Amino acid sequence: MSKIVIAVDAMGGDYAPQEIIKGAVEVVQEADIELILVGQEERIKPLLNKEKSNLPLQVYNASQVVEMGEPPAEAIRFKKDASIKVALELVKKGVAQGVFSAGNSGATLAMAMFTLGRLKGVNRPALAGLIPTLKGYVVFIDVGGMVDCRPYHLVQFAVMGHVFAKYILGLPEPKVGLLNIGEEPTKGNELVKQTYTFLEKSPLNFIGNVEGKDILHHKADVVVCDGFVGNVALKLGEGVVESLITLVKKEVKKSLWAKLGLILVKNLLKNVFQILDYSEYGGAPLLGVNGTVIIGHGRSQAKAVKNGIKMAANFVKQDVNTHLEKGLQEHEALIPGKRWRKLAEKLKEVVP
Amino acid sequence: MSKIVIAVDAMGGDYAPQEIIKGAVEVVQEADIELILVGQEERIKPLLNKEKSNLPLQVYNASQVVEMGEPPAEAIRFKKDASIKVALELVKKGVAQGVFSAGNSGATLAMAMFTLGRLKGVNRPALAGLIPTLKGYVVFIDVGGMVDCRPYHLVQFAVMGHVFAKYILGLPEPKVGLLNIGEEPTKGNELVKQTYTFLEKSPLNFIGNVEGKDILHHKADVVVCDGFVGNVALKLGEGVVESLITLVKKEVKKSLWAKLGLILVKNLLKNVFQILDYSEYGGAPLLGVNGTVIIGHGRSQAKAVKNGIKMAANFVKQDVNTHLEKGLQEHEALIPGKRWRKLAEKLKEVVP
Repeated sequence: MSKIVIAVDAMGGDYAPQEIIKGAVEVVQEADIELILVGQEERIKPLLNKEKSNLPLQVYNASQVVEMGEPPAEAIRFKKDASIKVALELVKKGVAQGVFSAGNSGATLAMAMFTLGRLKGVNRPALAGLIPTLKGYVVFIDVGGMVDCRPYHLVQFAVMGHVFAKYILGLPEPKVGLLNIGEEPTKGNELVKQTYTFLEKSPLNFIGNVEGKDILHHKADVVVCDGFVGNVALKLGEGVVESLITLVKKEVKKSLWAKLGLILVKNLLKNVFQILDYSEYGGAPLLGVNGTVIIGHGRSQAKAVKNGIKMAANFVKQDVNTHLEKGLQEHEALIPGKRWRKLAEKLKEVVP
Repeated sequence: MSKIVIAVDAMGGDYAPQEIIKGAVEVVQEADIELILVGQEERIKPLLNKEKSNLPLQVYNASQVVEMGEPPAEAIRFKKDASIKVALELVKKGVAQGVFSAGNSGATLAMAMFTLGRLKGVNRPALAGLIPTLKGYVVFIDVGGMVDCRPYHLVQFAVMGHVFAKYILGLPEPKVGLLNIGEEPTKGNELVKQTYTFLEKSPLNFIGNVEGKDILHHKADVVVCDGFVGNVALKLGEGVVESLITLVKKEVKKSLWAKLGLILVKNLLKNVFQILDYSEYGGAPLLGVNGTVIIGHGRSQAKAVKNGIKMAANFVKQDVNTHLEKGLQEHEALIPGKRWRKLAEKLKEVVP
């Protein structure tokens, strides 16, 4: 079998291109993966030492860069030669099998759907966040902002989260939970109440409703929700951690004893933050597109980049997309037929 | 003017009736408020010392107690003589002007709506969470699980949050934000996009969309959202804080130095948690019911009870409900008329 080839968006992320390239070099030194660094040649090449010229690392020129705050619609329209777009096209053409980017996640998401299209049986691809807990990672899907979902979208998210947890996280029978405001099946809004009735009948290991606090207690391995709720919740969770750190930093300045104390608990805090560290996994998979796309955190440094690229390669190796299509097919009979779904979409337009 | 009378649910909460009574006694010793302790006489009376018989504290018997996990629908049906129900009826009858309860919040909410009814101009009452930040409290509305909201519900939440922030938190011109997954007006689901267009035209100090992380950065004084999103977010936020504490406790056991360090940073942590402490405010107001109802945290101890009761009294004193009705009336012209709203509700039933 030939080597797995991953296209890396060398220009995406707060520390691009330096940390992206550093992470990429580490990958090819550690694993049997071939990489294509996509971006502005004149900025990438000087960062690759000459002695590294024998590594399986190519550079592929792309003249434009999508900025972090740039609206996805504008990026799609005006940046046809952006590094992320070119990287996705390499997958489309079959030159690479997967993409890793730590750049503008909204633009990556939109461009990936646009360039690669969807897998069979997928109405909307979804971004799965990996939430660190004491008992390993929880797959939280969707966090990518797939808003105004219908129950069959959530069922598809559940299937995709299940397949990812099984083949990439290595859980033989992942527990799937539905994010809700209470545990009883009668709780919640219309969306989750209807989704519950579908998931109940599915072959998945569905454990019922889980609440916000249950995510971190790892009650379920996969937590399913509408992209609006997921995105708000993810950002709030990050905000809480950031605020606590700010608070501690502010308070510690007031006392010498506290400063000394903090030095003593430094290792403890290091361990705590290692558990919370997203760079251990490196990225969030975009599930349901016809290709492999891993989206790294904007703040990704070399380690996160390395692990994100490895996840992309593993995704290809495990043939996750074939399993996704198979899983979705098994669920086709459970959820309303295409005609009904189309009608529901239409009605939603009429009655927003 | 006669004294403000607050009915206190003496049986509601994890530490009831002991801590509830302790808090109530502190209130009448500190402030010019009259209290009615509602609950099982035989359990309350032994906890009131004889020398306190001259305090403005009455006991009003109610034979039943709503348990913490009890489904609200069952409580309404089978517990007609529950302490919280009887307390609400005292308000209905005009014997008391407000209620404080740290009991089952779902049941309190449902019973309050059922017993007291709604203020004029309110389609759905909402529970406002008070989120502690470095710059004071943020009014986060709705956290009470008012799901499947329409834009006019969210507009009403915004008005109610604004009035509460103005008259109870004392902010002359509170900044109102809409919880969303991005800052641009085009972001989000249909609900928030439509709500945005209404709020833009309102006389409120509307600052636009805010994201999950912005809540804690106190970008807005009032953050408006659907009750599903708000309830999930609130519980997730609590979960993150709890998980961090668990992690630290687990790690500290591994090292003597860390233990020593933690002793030194104890005051620091105390200050941090004081900022995060809900007991400073004591409760979440239920806004839009025809009466004053403050819902305390289930874990409320004397201090939180005391502050919650004081908030109820202040709510009555500031005549918040009159201001609410006035504010809602000012917004009537902005949002679709009653007939359209009724049609929208009907359509939602047909097309869930």
